[in-house]
Amino acid sequence: MATAGKVIKCKAAVAWEPKKPLVIEEIEVTPPQANEVRIKIVATSVCHTDLYHLLEDEAGFPTVLGHEGAGIVESVGPGVTEFQPGDKVIPLFISQCRECRFCKSPKTNQCENAWSGRDPQMMASADSRFTCKGKKVLQFVGTSTFSEYTVVNQIAVAKIDPTAPLDKVCLLGCGICTGYGAAVNTAKVEPGSTCAVFGLGAVGLAAVMGCKAAGAKRIFAVDINPDKFEKAKVFGATDFVNPKDHDKPISQVLAEMTNGGVDYSLECIGKVDIMRSALESCIPSWGVSVIVGWTDLEDFSARPVQLIAGRTWKGSLFGGFKSKDGVPQMVKDYLDKKVKVDEFITHNMTLDQVNDAIELMKQSKCIRTVLSVSPQ
Amino acid sequence: MATAGKVIKCKAAVAWEPKKPLVIEEIEVTPPQANEVRIKIVATSVCHTDLYHLLEDEAGFPTVLGHEGAGIVESVGPGVTEFQPGDKVIPLFISQCRECRFCKSPKTNQCENAWSGRDPQMMASADSRFTCKGKKVLQFVGTSTFSEYTVVNQIAVAKIDPTAPLDKVCLLGCGICTGYGAAVNTAKVEPGSTCAVFGLGAVGLAAVMGCKAAGAKRIFAVDINPDKFEKAKVFGATDFVNPKDHDKPISQVLAEMTNGGVDYSLECIGKVDIMRSALESCIPSWGVSVIVGWTDLEDFSARPVQLIAGRTWKGSLFGGFKSKDGVPQMVKDYLDKKVKVDEFITHNMTLDQVNDAIELMKQSKCIRTVLSVSPQ
Ligand SMILES: NC(=O)c1ccc[n+]([C@@H]2O[C@H](COP(=O)([O-])OP(=O)(O)OC[C@H]3O[C@@H](n4cnc5c(N)ncnc54)[C@H](O)[C@@H]3O)[C@@H](O)[C@H]2O)c1
Ligand SMILES: NC(=O)c1ccc[n+]([C@@H]2O[C@H](COP(=O)([O-])OP(=O)(O)OC[C@H]3O[C@@H](n4cnc5c(N)ncnc54)[C@H](O)[C@@H]3O)[C@@H](O)[C@H]2O)c1
Ligand SMILES: [Zn+2]
Ligand SMILES: [Zn+2]
Ligand SMILES: [Zn+2]
Ligand SMILES: [Zn+2]
Repeated sequence: MATAGKVIKCKAAVAWEPKKPLVIEEIEVTPPQANEVRIKIVATSVCHTDLYHLLEDEAGFPTVLGHEGAGIVESVGPGVTEFQPGDKVIPLFISQCRECRFCKSPKTNQCENAWSGRDPQMMASADSRFTCKGKKVLQFVGTSTFSEYTVVNQIAVAKIDPTAPLDKVCLLGCGICTGYGAAVNTAKVEPGSTCAVFGLGAVGLAAVMGCKAAGAKRIFAVDINPDKFEKAKVFGATDFVNPKDHDKPISQVLAEMTNGGVDYSLECIGKVDIMRSALESCIPSWGVSVIVGWTDLEDFSARPVQLIAGRTWKGSLFGGFKSKDGVPQMVKDYLDKKVKVDEFITHNMTLDQVNDAIELMKQSKCIRTVLSVSPQ
Repeated sequence: MATAGKVIKCKAAVAWEPKKPLVIEEIEVTPPQANEVRIKIVATSVCHTDLYHLLEDEAGFPTVLGHEGAGIVESVGPGVTEFQPGDKVIPLFISQCRECRFCKSPKTNQCENAWSGRDPQMMASADSRFTCKGKKVLQFVGTSTFSEYTVVNQIAVAKIDPTAPLDKVCLLGCGICTGYGAAVNTAKVEPGSTCAVFGLGAVGLAAVMGCKAAGAKRIFAVDINPDKFEKAKVFGATDFVNPKDHDKPISQVLAEMTNGGVDYSLECIGKVDIMRSALESCIPSWGVSVIVGWTDLEDFSARPVQLIAGRTWKGSLFGGFKSKDGVPQMVKDYLDKKVKVDEFITHNMTLDQVNDAIELMKQSKCIRTVLSVSPQ
């Protein structure tokens, strides 16, 4: 490649400061260092976690957002043998080094060697390969897919089937794997069970799809935006609950509809009062509730007796998938028509329109918007 | 028996109102009704949950406390075939009807047919077989072992080995099974793991014993009363931490001692701030924290990221033991010297001295006090 070894100047959407629109800028992307891969991003979608960082976090700016993308390897740094220029890849916001005690354990997907200086409460990497107008620009969760080029450590890159359409499988970089895995891997939904999914964005709809794949017999889809119910049906939801239609707490509504509560509940919104409501919606004795939605602004809470009565409270990051193993498998499952991806895409735009895509999600008017970034 | 079919007048310690000393009174105990068993209580011990109800609850008085006892069947009501006068038994505060959907599931020990009108937030049974001075006196958690006689539904009575010493195995009616089972059944402690137990009363010490039995390699015993550490060693604790000796949060102290946190933590105190601290003490990725201590006065809380990072929060009632199956087995394990019981007993008194026994526990000056109630 003509660009290998050289700084690339390219287009990216820079978040200069919190709560402000992103600005399309020309940035400089350094060549990959040891164990790093430089990727030309072909397509990316917008996830609510991008909005969370932009709208709720104060630290970690300026940055390039975006962590749900797919692209093609442009060049590799010293020591990289697993990837070659031309490989189709998905950058991963959660790494899999295969060597740390967490990677070696079947119990978790949370690699110890995440993006350098990783702190779960600090979403920007300490290190970055980006500059713009002479300033260092941070890489959001080690990825930054709202850019024509990005540099990612090889432990956070998944090589995927070369026949996969990048403008579709980019969604497997976060939302779909997150929701699907939260049901299948974290909650471990059992056949014949009843489930409730709170929040019907891509994460929640993927959770519905996961519950269905696991054999759930009844799946309650809960959202304050009833426009989402039709989509939820496509993914397998059987019952639809709009909290606005009820005077009672939703946990009581669900308890009455299910003789005591659902077996599994998944919070896919990121609000602490809904996390509690999701816990309370599951049946005492064996109910399992999983927190998937993200917020770091407040504590969640409940009464001790609600757990002593037999419920289990868990959380899920990236659906519990070990990322380098899980993503190529999910791509394969998509190509084999075992999981849906196309159905999540409601809008297609270009990177220049990223602020419009953000606005759509803010207003709960889309499921996923795919932005085309570079020509393939 | 000469008493069968008749009202028995006998001695009991009555809690007339919250926060007041118990009063030894003569009470009337009706004959057992259909499916009920009348039991002569031989020995009982005092558990912190008795103190909780006396000192923290407002409703559910007058009552006879006590739920950790052992005795001999005096007579049985119509329809009872499993028990006969003379059988050695332990009354159970949690039933096992063997017929409800919860009893039929291996996932839980929480029987749906608990003492009539059971509400987990309401510790007194709606119904009672006791009167005193013309007033109905409630039965605490369906048992009431601070009485020479009590009446219990057969689904809440365990028949035990006739050679078992009742003044020892009475402890298996609550505290020991609760702590031991919380480690073995609820946390499912694995061999080679690290554990932390918060609170070293009988429940916490039994949790230590459970961790040890499950093969834990390191067991941190945490208490603000260092007098408890010697006993904790007897049950298998390897490290001793007094929060008063540290300026840092105890979760940080434990994280430093264990390279990131313990695999399992058990809260055996009943304070919501310690529940949080116990959660935070366990390692992200796969740590499991179990709430065993009881309080219904406040919410427990944590940040969502603490679960999203991979921790699991559970609760345990009676250590997850299905009561009628578990208690006779634990009695057998005691007789076979597989579990310790004698080592929990620090004081022996008579029922008349119940207020002294309560005072000892309030001051954290005992592990368990056994009260002899009736001669055998
Ligand atoms: N744990 C992880 O690994 C992980 C990964 C990706 C996203 N997330 C989080 O998952 C959450 C969902 O992400 P998304 O991209 O699907 O978001 P989204 O904005 O597309 O969807 C959120 C949905 O929640 C609904 N909603 C909002 N408030 C509600 C309420 N009070 N009751 C019921 N429904 C309500 C909205 O109408 C919308 O349909 C976000 O918090 C995101 O940060 C977590
Ligand atoms: N879940 C159940 O099924 C169940 C059953 C029985 C008892 N319980 C509960 O378990 C708890 C323990 O019961 P117990 O009989 O062993 O009580 P206990 O009073 O004998 O023991 C409590 C211990 O906690 C220690 N402690 C108090 N505050 C502390 C602090 N801030 N930090 C560290 N240690 C502290 C005390 O010194 C004492 O050693 C109680 O809350 C009781 O209600 C629950
Ligand atoms: Zn995301
Ligand atoms: Zn790793
Ligand atoms: Zn007890
Ligand atoms: Zn039952």
